[in-house]
Parts: sequence; C-alpha cells; structure tokens
Amino acid sequence: MSLDTAATKPHERLATELATEMEAVNGLIRERMASEHAPRIPEVTAHLVEAGGKRLRPMMTLAAAKMCGYDGPYHVHLAATVEFIHTATLLHDDVVDESSQRRGRPTANLLWDNTSSVLVGDYLFARSFQLMVETGSLRVLDILANASATIAEGEVLQLTAASNLATTEAIYLQVVRGKTAALFSAAMEVGGVIAGVSEDRVKALYAYGDALGVAFQIVDDLLDYRGTDATGKNVGDDFRERKLTLPVIKAVAMADAEERAFWERTIAKGKQASGDLETAMAILARHDTLEATRVEALAWSEKAKAALAPLPDHPIRSMLVELADYVVARIS
Amino acid sequence: MSLDTAATKPHERLATELATEMEAVNGLIRERMASEHAPRIPEVTAHLVEAGGKRLRPMMTLAAAKMCGYDGPYHVHLAATVEFIHTATLLHDDVVDESSQRRGRPTANLLWDNTSSVLVGDYLFARSFQLMVETGSLRVLDILANASATIAEGEVLQLTAASNLATTEAIYLQVVRGKTAALFSAAMEVGGVIAGVSEDRVKALYAYGDALGVAFQIVDDLLDYRGTDATGKNVGDDFRERKLTLPVIKAVAMADAEERAFWERTIAKGKQASGDLETAMAILARHDTLEATRVEALAWSEKAKAALAPLPDHPIRSMLVELADYVVARIS
Repeated sequence: MSLDTAATKPHERLATELATEMEAVNGLIRERMASEHAPRIPEVTAHLVEAGGKRLRPMMTLAAAKMCGYDGPYHVHLAATVEFIHTATLLHDDVVDESSQRRGRPTANLLWDNTSSVLVGDYLFARSFQLMVETGSLRVLDILANASATIAEGEVLQLTAASNLATTEAIYLQVVRGKTAALFSAAMEVGGVIAGVSEDRVKALYAYGDALGVAFQIVDDLLDYRGTDATGKNVGDDFRERKLTLPVIKAVAMADAEERAFWERTIAKGKQASGDLETAMAILARHDTLEATRVEALAWSEKAKAALAPLPDHPIRSMLVELADYVVARIS
Repeated sequence: MSLDTAATKPHERLATELATEMEAVNGLIRERMASEHAPRIPEVTAHLVEAGGKRLRPMMTLAAAKMCGYDGPYHVHLAATVEFIHTATLLHDDVVDESSQRRGRPTANLLWDNTSSVLVGDYLFARSFQLMVETGSLRVLDILANASATIAEGEVLQLTAASNLATTEAIYLQVVRGKTAALFSAAMEVGGVIAGVSEDRVKALYAYGDALGVAFQIVDDLLDYRGTDATGKNVGDDFRERKLTLPVIKAVAMADAEERAFWERTIAKGKQASGDLETAMAILARHDTLEATRVEALAWSEKAKAALAPLPDHPIRSMLVELADYVVARIS
C-alpha cells in the first residue's frame, strides 16, 4: 500500500491489495465472454463488464478467499462467476426497467435491446454455471444455486410489490435480500468455502455480505429522497416510478386518512401532479422516516462489522470493516 | 402395457412404461414451482408446466436411466430439471417472439408479460440448478452447464442470423442444436450418467438425443411449408416472419439473379406483398428443396436409431427406435 492510503477509499484499497488476483479475474472474464458462434454476445457484454464498475462483488470473493488463506486457483473462477451473475442480472433488469419506463412511448430499437438483453443474460448465467462447475465443489454450487433462486424470487416479489401500499418492511427486506444482499453474501461465502474454513467462519462471511448488502441498498433508497452529488439520480425518481422503498413504507404505516389518500393516489394509482413530490417529502419529514431509515442503514452496517469478529486478524479484515463504514458514509 | 399397444404412439407407450416415475416427476415439479414469497411464480408457470405437453424431454431422461438399469432416486430430479430448463426457455422465447411480432402494434399488457416471463424464467433456471445440485453428481452438472451455454448461444445466433441471407446450412444446424437438440441430448446423457454406464453408452445416449432433436426441428421447419393437420401453424408462417429455415437456405444457395432479388426483398428487407408466398413455394418446388429437406430429416432419424446400437436390449430401446420413426412419420 502506498503512503497516501488515508486518501483512498476502502474499495480502492481492496482493489490495490487484490490487484494481481483481479487481473486474473478480468482475463478470465474476457476469455469466457467470447462466443465462437455468436459474436454479438461479447459486443453486448463488453460495455457492461468492461465499463469499469467497482467490481465490488468479485472483489468480495477474492477478499474472503485471501483472508482465509486460500492458495489455490479457484477463487478467480468464483469471482468471475459472481461478476457474470451480476452482469446477467443487470441485463435482465434492463428489460424490466425499460418496460416500465416506456409505457405509452415505444421506441424503435428497444425491442431488439430487450431480446438481446434476455438472451445474452441467459448466456452469461450459463457461462457462470460452467465456471463454478470447474471448481469441483458441490458446496459452492449449492450456495450459488440457492443465491440464484433468492435473486430471482426477490425480483419477482419486487414486481408484484411495486405500487402496492400493502408492502411491509418485511417484504421490502426480502426484496432487498434478493436484489442486492444475496449475491453479496454468496460472494463472501464461496470465498471462504473454497478456502476450506470452519463453519463458524463461513457463517461469519455470509452474515457480513448479507448485512453489507442490506445496508448498501437501504442507503441507495434513502439517497433517492435525500439527494446526493454522486449517484446521478434525481431526488424523487423512486417516487415518480411509484417504487415503495423504506422511507415511504414507514410513512404509509403511520399515515392518517389524508396522507393515506395521498399515497393511494400518487403511488397505488400513479396519478401524480406538479407539487406532489414536495408533499411527499413533507409527509416523510412529518414522520421523520428519512431519519428512521438512516438509523436502520447504520445498524446494518454495524451488524456487518460485528459479523467479522470470528474471522482471522488480517489486513483485509480491516478493509472490510472500513468498507462497511464507507457504504453508510454518505448518510452519516 | 395394454393389448392395444399397436394403436398408441411411441411417446404414449413410453409414458405408460414410465408412468410411476413420471408421476414422481410431476409431484416434484409441483413442489418446486411453489414460492413462499412470490405467489405469482406458480401462477405463471402452472399454465406452462401443467398444460399437459408431451413431456418428451423429462421422459427421455427417465427412459435413459431405466434402460441403463438405474435404481436410485435422482433420475426424477434430473427429469424435473430438464423440464424446468425447457419451461424457462419457453418463457424467454416468448419475450423474443412477442417482441418481433408486435412491431408497430403495442398492446397494453404485453409489457407486464415480458417482465414476468423474464423473471419467472430466471427463477425456473435457478430452481433447475438447485435440483441438479441435489444429485451430487459433478458430471451431471457439467453436462447441463454445457447444454445451457449451447442453448443460450443458439438463441443469440438465431437472433443474429434472422433475415440474413448469408445464413448457411452449418449455421442453421448450430441454431437447431441450440434451440432443440442440446436439451434432447443432455436429457438422454444425464439419465445414463446417473446410472453409471460406460463411456460408449453415454456417448450413444448423447448421439441419439442430438440426432432426434435435429430431426425433430427439421421436420417442424419443413411442415411450415408443407402444411399439416396437427401443428396449428399456417403454411408460410416462417416465410412471413422472415425466418431462414432449411428449405429456403437451400433455395437461396441455388438462386439465380431473379430469385436472389426475390429473397432479398421478401426475407432480407421484409417487403412482402400478396402472392409472394406462392412465388416462394414455386421457387422451393423448382429447386426441389422440400424433398431435399425431407431426405435430411429422414437421415437424422436413421442416425438416431443407429446411435442406439451400443445400448442394452431393453423394451425402452425399442420404444426409442419407434420414437425416432414417429418424429419423421408426418413427412414420410
């Protein structure tokens, strides 16, 4: 690590610590994206996989494996697996999100995009499946099969919960586990399993990834109402798209008759008018639900840090602690 | 088997022979379709899985396992796996097919359907993945991972080959292997692998499924131009949808300048007018490509039957021979 460690962010320090392994993961991803028979596949995936995201999920797998003393080759396969699953999920989310955005305004090339997104996503799932089979670990396959089911179930649940005022905090948590935490926890867990660590450490890795993922998603949903410099989202996007996230779910639970009617009209029926976002913000402020949501995110971050206790004292463990702080730093 | 065996079709005789096992498969499918958290999932899948199709693919797995003397429980898991993969593929095909059909005419509930189809398809893939992990056989996982990749690759290839007059017979075969034969061959293969048969028998099972699948798809594409009582398709659907199937690919390869211009206009550019189907049929007749296609389908059926030679002499083997005849019976 360089002298200006203090100036870098935790995920950047992790990236530095895991640079060699990450290079191998990127090489494997490029190799397995290729399709001899269907050159469109790498075209579609390249801009997603190569776009230079934070690569947080594969890094978590590498971090868990390295922290647990693994010295074999398969953490690289598993990290690539996790990134492929993530990319496939993004491709399929595109179809779902584009579909809802385009109501009433069809665009010419959207159909082609939908089709490519579905099929190339399927291809990446299949490729991730081949990669994990190569590890030869049935335990790893079991974990990733279960994570895949949780992700898909969460996505369907989100669809049916959308714009439904009966959505509870428990359902919200289930959706969040599916869309974000399931892959975080599986990414950590398989890193430990491939390293052959004890059950309590596998559980610890799972618990860290789970809590970090939940914190991550709650922060994202909170920032949608608080605004931020970095997300590129406008305040109120979720409100306009009638998504029920934690701040609104909490407010609906405490609504009086008039507020209830407001949520019915704007979220359930989707009849929004100018000034409605301001009214929504005023209701959230009245019940202090942004603060309650913030407190919950912080609690999940603390839970993530506490989960790390059974793991070996290792520089990477410290970085994971800092990562849990960093995830909530924007709302602290 | 009952006295009127001669009056039943081969897949019905297989269904009778495998009735007990098939009952277990149906039970497992119903059990694993359920979703505690997202009740929409069984709603969407039920009409597909319960619709009472021929269940040809799971039956092939059961047939292979039973013919190879398997007496464990996992052929049932694998048969359900194969049916889930097939159903997931159908759901995703819906998105692709609906997309192309709806150009210029959006319908109100299509967006919702697309979304459900994508996500519930993903859920079934994940469920199938869990089922195969339960068998504890890495070899089986490897076969199904590779089949999944071939299927997805074939689907993307079909997309990019669509309406492209440069499509060769080799590309057509690749697409057919992906959309049909890959799951047929994997379904047979895993039945033998779980039974622990020798490599030459595993190869024989694969070869039978592959050839049967190719024959099956070529017959389907041929009937689109020949017409039939049973398919529910109209003559010329593929022509109208600008799909390049074997009869047209063969005709394009032999086209003179005028015919080439016709295919360019009707298939590549999609500018079709009244009377074009009749012209297309006349060109196919001129080059006798329906007959050439028929001969190819019959050859694949023969190849399927020949592949069965290394397998044990068993009533099921005879039914599989009859099945290969039956697949091409409508064009014989």
